[in-house]
Amino acid sequence: MNKQFADRMNNVHKSFIREILKVTEDPNIISFAGGLPNPKSFPVKEVEEAVTKVLGTRGEEALQYSTTEGYRPLREYIAQRYLKKGLEVDTDQILITNGSQQGIDLTGKVFLNKGDRVLFENPTYLAAIQSFGLLEAEFKSVPLLEDGVDTDALIKVLDEDNIKLFYSVTNFQNPTGITYSQEKREKVAEILRDRDTIFLEDNPYGEIRFLGEDLPPVKSYLEEGMLLGSFSKIVSPGMRLGWIVAPEDVMEKLVIAKQASDLHSNYFTQRVIYQYLTDNDVDKHIEKIREMYRNQRNLMVEMIAEHFPDGVDYTKPEGGMFLWVTLPEGLSSLELFDLAIRENVAFVPGKAFFCEGGGDNTLRLNFSNSSEEKIEEGMGRLGVAIGKLMNQKEHR
Amino acid sequence: MNKQFADRMNNVHKSFIREILKVTEDPNIISFAGGLPNPKSFPVKEVEEAVTKVLGTRGEEALQYSTTEGYRPLREYIAQRYLKKGLEVDTDQILITNGSQQGIDLTGKVFLNKGDRVLFENPTYLAAIQSFGLLEAEFKSVPLLEDGVDTDALIKVLDEDNIKLFYSVTNFQNPTGITYSQEKREKVAEILRDRDTIFLEDNPYGEIRFLGEDLPPVKSYLEEGMLLGSFSKIVSPGMRLGWIVAPEDVMEKLVIAKQASDLHSNYFTQRVIYQYLTDNDVDKHIEKIREMYRNQRNLMVEMIAEHFPDGVDYTKPEGGMFLWVTLPEGLSSLELFDLAIRENVAFVPGKAFFCEGGGDNTLRLNFSNSSEEKIEEGMGRLGVAIGKLMNQKEHR
Repeated sequence: MNKQFADRMNNVHKSFIREILKVTEDPNIISFAGGLPNPKSFPVKEVEEAVTKVLGTRGEEALQYSTTEGYRPLREYIAQRYLKKGLEVDTDQILITNGSQQGIDLTGKVFLNKGDRVLFENPTYLAAIQSFGLLEAEFKSVPLLEDGVDTDALIKVLDEDNIKLFYSVTNFQNPTGITYSQEKREKVAEILRDRDTIFLEDNPYGEIRFLGEDLPPVKSYLEEGMLLGSFSKIVSPGMRLGWIVAPEDVMEKLVIAKQASDLHSNYFTQRVIYQYLTDNDVDKHIEKIREMYRNQRNLMVEMIAEHFPDGVDYTKPEGGMFLWVTLPEGLSSLELFDLAIRENVAFVPGKAFFCEGGGDNTLRLNFSNSSEEKIEEGMGRLGVAIGKLMNQKEHR
Repeated sequence: MNKQFADRMNNVHKSFIREILKVTEDPNIISFAGGLPNPKSFPVKEVEEAVTKVLGTRGEEALQYSTTEGYRPLREYIAQRYLKKGLEVDTDQILITNGSQQGIDLTGKVFLNKGDRVLFENPTYLAAIQSFGLLEAEFKSVPLLEDGVDTDALIKVLDEDNIKLFYSVTNFQNPTGITYSQEKREKVAEILRDRDTIFLEDNPYGEIRFLGEDLPPVKSYLEEGMLLGSFSKIVSPGMRLGWIVAPEDVMEKLVIAKQASDLHSNYFTQRVIYQYLTDNDVDKHIEKIREMYRNQRNLMVEMIAEHFPDGVDYTKPEGGMFLWVTLPEGLSSLELFDLAIRENVAFVPGKAFFCEGGGDNTLRLNFSNSSEEKIEEGMGRLGVAIGKLMNQKEHR
């Protein structure tokens, strides 16, 4: 038969990162390419205790179908946790999703027609590009500075380009590790307040701040904003549980879209995660993760200072799992990738994170999923590879 | 702000069934309206043992991110089980999804442009109408006879209407309980073989055959067909795990769409369900469910014969969870619903399952989730309500 795929499939391709991850499966390669939390941070024993409790007391209920919105006590827990951080959110405004990734997908389904314009930070989270690409959106981008989005450029693009939705990762962004300053948060809210552009704030890493002070989400200053959250980085990514916070008129549409997508998120693990969260000191657990990642990040920064040639720039993230490296202008991180693989070390070339081209001299490093030994050894190897690239360039 | 939702949201509304289920939350009402498996059939203790084993031996791995395609041993298990039933499927052609509902959503994403024509059985599964509605497909329908789709009508609509995708539930269909005969299966495959129409065969109830002999899926005779399966009716619906079987070129697109939707399905429960399936005698467990549902179905049929007035027609399903009632021409099941609620009994009026109108005199009854006492009492009440409706009609 002659199969005709939908037009939307022309806009997305197999993730470049997936392809890279295949190359790096060789156990001799030290890989900073992935984006995984450190499995040592997973509360395995506590999850098992939670399962025993849930199945022992409410087993039949926990294995049955449930409501599309999600387990209400879990939604209340999320609302309570926001309240402690100063953000007032009604339980009815929270929808449980399959990680924050599904929050992106559902928000797109609810708002985007083919050809609608989505504005990304430049660079941005790759799977958001893919998700909005499947909805046949057009892409625009706005530069990301050290303290968040370039607000002058933001005003310009909003004034000129009829932007339907602005997608932003305000804390320890993937891929750059950049965090919006307090000033930028308020400024972005102010810029968006009287416009019809939907603001979608993705915050999967927010709890993993290991330096400095927590800052409120932009949604604190922008009532109509939408906010995504996730249990992936504080409990378990394998459970695929996250949430959307949205105004009530949007919630109604999201519930319809969620129902048509998969009826509801895994109810058994919603019950388990809720049990885990209420029976344990979550803040203590998060503090443990923060300490772990702080050490890994500090070591990686230290190794860069020690092993990388002059002229290489990099971010110094205050949280999250990634660090972003910028090579001197004219150098290609794709060429570096080949040299690095020969040194048995891997990363993600930055190009993939730019929705409108560029970023040839950038790369993403993950620090959360490597031991101290691997960071020490791997960053040394990467320094050697960068040195070789620079040498090649000089002698061309 | 002035929010502009996407056009696709105009095509779907809050599920009519959801609204009905709210009415029936009153504990005095005996409800045959829902579509739930019997929670007594859930293997709670065995799932707990599986969790203990998974977390005890591979805890960190089970809580980590995983591949989009799903846990390979689980996919192999599914392929093996098909092989035992005579269908040869390669493990690489199986994608793990969030129930078979997500199989519908992803297949639509991969194939359907706005305005593409989807053909449904008439009546059909409501959430499939919703899912394809979100993709802005146009709907066509083809009558369902006692032994499956009307094949003459099928040929006609395929010849005339440029159908992109034909969605079919071949075993114990929701809502009618109708099953395709062996002859119809082969005939449908033959009709579709040289056409470009995608055949999407949804089979969530196939394992729950309590009368007669298992029949092979249409895909057995149609290599390019797509087939959906689910663990919801044999292990736990709350875990939201199912799968798609698709030819390899389609799989590649499905993986991209799945990744953009939610990266992958809950990996922890994939591991748990696999452990459960390998450590237990699944066929014995399924036989237990079959026996339970057979008794419930037999009792409901018996009660219809006893309590319903002459002239009311009904299906006698060989499996699944639903039975379909047709009132004499000219009677309205929506009017019956009001009378039934006054008798403290509920069902789903059939209208909702017809994508092109009609079905005013039909209704769906669920037998899997009611005790024998409730079936006896509730069907008596429903008989009274139908009698009152007929009386009203005569004296109008």
